[in-house]
Amino acid sequence: MVKGFQFDTYMAEKATLVNNALEEAVPLQEPLKIHEAMRYSLLAGGKRVRPILCLASCELVGGAESRAMAMALAVEMVHTMSLIHDDLPCMDNDDLRRGKPTNHKVYGDDTAVLAGDALLSLAFEHLATRTIGVGPDRVVQAISELASAVGSLGLVAGQIVDISSEGKQDVDLNKLEYIHVHKTAKLLEAAVVGGAVLGGGNSDEVERVRKYARSIGLLFQVVDDILDVTKSSEELGKTAGKDLLSDKATYPKLMGLDGAKKFAGELLATAVEELGFFDAGRAAPLHHLAHYIAYRQN
Amino acid sequence: MVKGFQFDTYMAEKATLVNNALEEAVPLQEPLKIHEAMRYSLLAGGKRVRPILCLASCELVGGAESRAMAMALAVEMVHTMSLIHDDLPCMDNDDLRRGKPTNHKVYGDDTAVLAGDALLSLAFEHLATRTIGVGPDRVVQAISELASAVGSLGLVAGQIVDISSEGKQDVDLNKLEYIHVHKTAKLLEAAVVGGAVLGGGNSDEVERVRKYARSIGLLFQVVDDILDVTKSSEELGKTAGKDLLSDKATYPKLMGLDGAKKFAGELLATAVEELGFFDAGRAAPLHHLAHYIAYRQN
Repeated sequence: MVKGFQFDTYMAEKATLVNNALEEAVPLQEPLKIHEAMRYSLLAGGKRVRPILCLASCELVGGAESRAMAMALAVEMVHTMSLIHDDLPCMDNDDLRRGKPTNHKVYGDDTAVLAGDALLSLAFEHLATRTIGVGPDRVVQAISELASAVGSLGLVAGQIVDISSEGKQDVDLNKLEYIHVHKTAKLLEAAVVGGAVLGGGNSDEVERVRKYARSIGLLFQVVDDILDVTKSSEELGKTAGKDLLSDKATYPKLMGLDGAKKFAGELLATAVEELGFFDAGRAAPLHHLAHYIAYRQN
Repeated sequence: MVKGFQFDTYMAEKATLVNNALEEAVPLQEPLKIHEAMRYSLLAGGKRVRPILCLASCELVGGAESRAMAMALAVEMVHTMSLIHDDLPCMDNDDLRRGKPTNHKVYGDDTAVLAGDALLSLAFEHLATRTIGVGPDRVVQAISELASAVGSLGLVAGQIVDISSEGKQDVDLNKLEYIHVHKTAKLLEAAVVGGAVLGGGNSDEVERVRKYARSIGLLFQVVDDILDVTKSSEELGKTAGKDLLSDKATYPKLMGLDGAKKFAGELLATAVEELGFFDAGRAAPLHHLAHYIAYRQN
């Protein structure tokens, strides 16, 4: 950890920046209902870890934060879309998200489907039209990173394998890792890689942050699984113990709680190692973010 | 109409080209279920009017067809996504599409939601990574056109207003036009404008094809409404008379059948007028396409 770096202040400032920009990116306009539904989930708080990772990665390679702001928001829009669609009755059928009723509970299933579709397309529109100070070749590259993180070899692949594995006893560590790499890690990777690309990083730098991102992406999910069995719904702001109830494969289930915690430690070490190749001061936010993801309590 | 232009041959050749490229763009791979579902709807035939419009617009401004092929496929992917999601039980609840059971009837609601999401992101990925021979600034512009055609001021806006208008008696011509401009015309506009942008068109040319696209976009829907009341399900390959049954506002309902036909004629004339500013030979496909949209029988 880098001494003198005020992580809590950093996170609070960046989250405020991101929240203000998200508020501006989706103004309340006609048709009101769809924009209300989009804003309801997009502005529902959350820790904004993905957009902050994107901004931090841009600054890691020496880029001005503003260059990656559109990408940071786009990643959060995609993340929100995936939450809205995953919560639908025909998917995970969740009633509670970030301590609030899920989107379809408030606006209806039809509007929730459409709000997700609109957020997904807005992500690409925003990235294409609101990225400033960056050459269009890098914008195209960032769009490509984001799109592949969502599609049938990304988020969607993770979700479809996850759904088809529910209640089955044949989910081993390989399949569990497949699910989490696709459901969680790929979007984190797009955030971090996109930030570095838009920040002007060279190909060596981009590949190093990609390795960092892959480790913390998996770390993120291992910690999520651990929290699901060790925390209450109130502490998490979402239904706890759900994985156990649905007999879902998780790291604690397959490795034991201690084994999962050990694995989390190894992933953290790998992530930190890649940051060693960058200037320590510039790497401080990503360094602390990795520790934050490892040791978060909700 | 341009003499000597073999429209049927042109359409058949272009449709084959598009179908082969779509087949390649979404190979059957793991996870099998999601790719099967995507391919089921994407490769279900259809007239490929949107991608052909895109290719024709590229050639209108003198660009090689290959420059707009990725855009053409992207538009068809977006169109297919919108059909899959619109057919869901929580939306229009349709069982039949292009003469086949709808996607969710075959693969389940959860997979249908995800197949739509995957096709939407693939559209942008394909456009970003597979557009060849075009500067990245024009690729970004095409992505922006496509994304804005889908989002909360595009397709989604049309669908949400359409859903909230069902069964209501207050749908006047203004609102009906709003719905159709957003549900149908915006994507056609993106196809045509994107084709011209990628083909190397200048801003004057792009604005002329935009006007052409807006006219035929609305024309497309007026004709759809007319066909719904004048044809059988068998002739259409989808449930006919559905608009009447659901008491939906349509052009024939608001203008009478003859009024709707007259309006269709005016839209066709406007579209053809814009093409007059281009070389007649190059404009022949778009000229014939406008007539085809006006006089199609299903």
